[in-house]
Amino acid sequence: MSSKPSILKGTRDFSSNEMQKRNYLFDKLKKIFYNFSFEEIQTPSIESLDNLTGQYGVEGDKLIFKILKSGNFLSKSDYNESSTYKSLALQISDKALRYDLTVPFARYVAQHRNNLSFPFRRFQIQNVWRADKPQKGRFREFFQCDADIIGTKSLIAEHELLRLYDTVFDSLGLTNLIIKINHRKILTGISQIIGEEEKLIDITVAIDKIDKIGLEKAKEEMYSKGISKKAIKKMDFIFGLEGSNLDKISVLRSFLSGSSIGIEGLDELSSLVSSFGDNALKCSLDFDFSLARGLNYYTGTIFEVKINQLDFGSLGGGGRYDDLTGIFGLKDVSGVGISFGFDRIFMALEELDLFPDLIHKKNKFLFINFGKKESTYCLNLLNKLRNKGIQSEIYPDFCKVKKQMQYAAKKDVKYVLLVGENEIYSNTISVKNMYDGTQKSMTFEQLLTLK
Amino acid sequence: MSSKPSILKGTRDFSSNEMQKRNYLFDKLKKIFYNFSFEEIQTPSIESLDNLTGQYGVEGDKLIFKILKSGNFLSKSDYNESSTYKSLALQISDKALRYDLTVPFARYVAQHRNNLSFPFRRFQIQNVWRADKPQKGRFREFFQCDADIIGTKSLIAEHELLRLYDTVFDSLGLTNLIIKINHRKILTGISQIIGEEEKLIDITVAIDKIDKIGLEKAKEEMYSKGISKKAIKKMDFIFGLEGSNLDKISVLRSFLSGSSIGIEGLDELSSLVSSFGDNALKCSLDFDFSLARGLNYYTGTIFEVKINQLDFGSLGGGGRYDDLTGIFGLKDVSGVGISFGFDRIFMALEELDLFPDLIHKKNKFLFINFGKKESTYCLNLLNKLRNKGIQSEIYPDFCKVKKQMQYAAKKDVKYVLLVGENEIYSNTISVKNMYDGTQKSMTFEQLLTLK
Repeated sequence: MSSKPSILKGTRDFSSNEMQKRNYLFDKLKKIFYNFSFEEIQTPSIESLDNLTGQYGVEGDKLIFKILKSGNFLSKSDYNESSTYKSLALQISDKALRYDLTVPFARYVAQHRNNLSFPFRRFQIQNVWRADKPQKGRFREFFQCDADIIGTKSLIAEHELLRLYDTVFDSLGLTNLIIKINHRKILTGISQIIGEEEKLIDITVAIDKIDKIGLEKAKEEMYSKGISKKAIKKMDFIFGLEGSNLDKISVLRSFLSGSSIGIEGLDELSSLVSSFGDNALKCSLDFDFSLARGLNYYTGTIFEVKINQLDFGSLGGGGRYDDLTGIFGLKDVSGVGISFGFDRIFMALEELDLFPDLIHKKNKFLFINFGKKESTYCLNLLNKLRNKGIQSEIYPDFCKVKKQMQYAAKKDVKYVLLVGENEIYSNTISVKNMYDGTQKSMTFEQLLTLK
Repeated sequence: MSSKPSILKGTRDFSSNEMQKRNYLFDKLKKIFYNFSFEEIQTPSIESLDNLTGQYGVEGDKLIFKILKSGNFLSKSDYNESSTYKSLALQISDKALRYDLTVPFARYVAQHRNNLSFPFRRFQIQNVWRADKPQKGRFREFFQCDADIIGTKSLIAEHELLRLYDTVFDSLGLTNLIIKINHRKILTGISQIIGEEEKLIDITVAIDKIDKIGLEKAKEEMYSKGISKKAIKKMDFIFGLEGSNLDKISVLRSFLSGSSIGIEGLDELSSLVSSFGDNALKCSLDFDFSLARGLNYYTGTIFEVKINQLDFGSLGGGGRYDDLTGIFGLKDVSGVGISFGFDRIFMALEELDLFPDLIHKKNKFLFINFGKKESTYCLNLLNKLRNKGIQSEIYPDFCKVKKQMQYAAKKDVKYVLLVGENEIYSNTISVKNMYDGTQKSMTFEQLLTLK
């Protein structure tokens, strides 16, 4: 047993102050999700390994925290020269910690399909765990916060989720946000036009890495995957496309004229943007045909939220999928989902000083303890205060008043209440205002009127 | 990949309705904890195995969910004839899921001691995981909800926690509750008087099992541990003690007159009970000298909450400890803690039908989708409704009105809003009340006045 207390890398303790800020963000999100008529669900932290393995690609699988079977999990005969980590892990582990909220959501929808009203609007805010290398802003345990509308092909679902993003960020005071949008069908169209349709996944994966590895390296990756230099050159212009969304659409429309699927994607994006009419979003919607999103279940629109002022990754992202629940036996159910990067948004609010001052639930009153008789008397008053909804406490120990005052000051208590023999006799309370140092005698009713 | 979606035994999905009930309970608890000036903290779900192993006894250790190390965790040379589950588990696992909130709390206090104001009042509501055999009311993942006051020996801490129990249960409408109380020093006194002081732990462990195995079996267990029949007979009366608390105290006072530590415990209990004065608890406080509480860190008062109407285990329990943080290098810090059995309380509220009707956040308005032009118009109105704080939605697909109405009915929407070409032209909304079947035409402003 180590006697130096510590926590694991990539995990966090949250102090009372941090919790109040986290709850502020949490409550804001929930309130708006309800306002948009999303239903909250929760799924277990632990899922069968079968449900998770293979869903996140080879790299993702390595980052799943696997849980050891109970009881005797391995006999010598199971272990031989050809045993690999992977083969052994499957013998000694059959369950794992949730890696994201999307796969459990798909499982949930497939499992409970008969009890849900489709189109089903759900939100979910829970922890996920990843055995990632911890670094600034990247944790091994962190909140994910997802909203989905599943069971509809209508673009109104996209409209609703973009409006949801906008409403949440606006209500948090986050301005100058950009929601980048693209469409997987446009990427398909581009790959058709450049004559590399069968390399669509390689192109998507490479484009998705541009933020991390830069454009040149991404192009090198495409080349190494067998995409011709000529083809890469042909699509080059999409990485530097500037101007208004209308300008961009017009350039793309002529480029994609030979691809009906590409034009379809373009039409959907135009239609989505025009659906806001006079009631524009506060975020700017920015067409970015080089936006790819790595996950391979996306089939339609894709989104990513960026903040201008800060050198952050994205604050969220999402898109449309056509067969998320297929792996759980429920085929061909289309939907759209977005996620809010809770910790990134938290960091943005911190850096931009956007947490309101008054979220801290402070203790207004603290009774000083003058001994057994006095404290018994005060416990009664304390009870009355709390019954009025006023957060208050009594110092439990009878010790030097100075020590008790220090405690009050450290906890930022506004009023310290001194009730000794005289006060009990005269049925009054001596009230010391810790902010301005003044002291007054008053009745309990007068106490209640203090601001 | 299995195509039949399922979750692991002992874990649960929570639907929207269940979540709203859970949030109701969660919010009630939090609100009262704040009112009592407790500070909320959270600790990581995953702790170092070193922090947890050995804290919960041999049986408890087996129930800890251990997490597999990443990378290559085992080589053939590690495995030999004498390898046991335990020895291997330690080689391939170095972290585990939180088993309770008490040990992480002790770790937290020791680790952050310099940033806390002592006496430190904390509450914590988080999941814990136990590899227990799942059965009705017992889960492998469940909420724990703890409140502690640490850093004081004052009985006011006990008083505050009993008041906290009382306030919480009263606010939930749970009546006829009994808080059983006892004192470890009384148990020590009894073991002294019967001449078996060195068997105190065996006595405590056996008494703690009475609820599960019955009194006779508990006595057999004591006997098998070497406690004499005569001694067992001598303490027999405490298991059948009836009458008022004062009666019980008087019987015990004469029995314990030869044990100063026993009398000390008795005095503390009497003093605690009298501290409520005229402001009695709504729960009954019931002295039960056969209450033991299994955990070995308790050193003073111990509590357990029972509900009369239901054949439940306890709804909560706790007690005073003198050296909880010692294992993490912070010695001799006394405190008191109680826990609320979230799932048990939830079940009690369900069985007694105490969840308020109106906790369900329902959608008041749903716009029917009459096509592209109409829905674009409605999206504007929808946005206005939400800005007024009214939870509302639009059916995303343009399909048969009957299907849309069925969706509205299934989601228990009160008003369905029909806005077709005529309504757009006349700037009105046709409103169908789904509860009484009536339909009226009105303006947007009139819509806002609907109850």
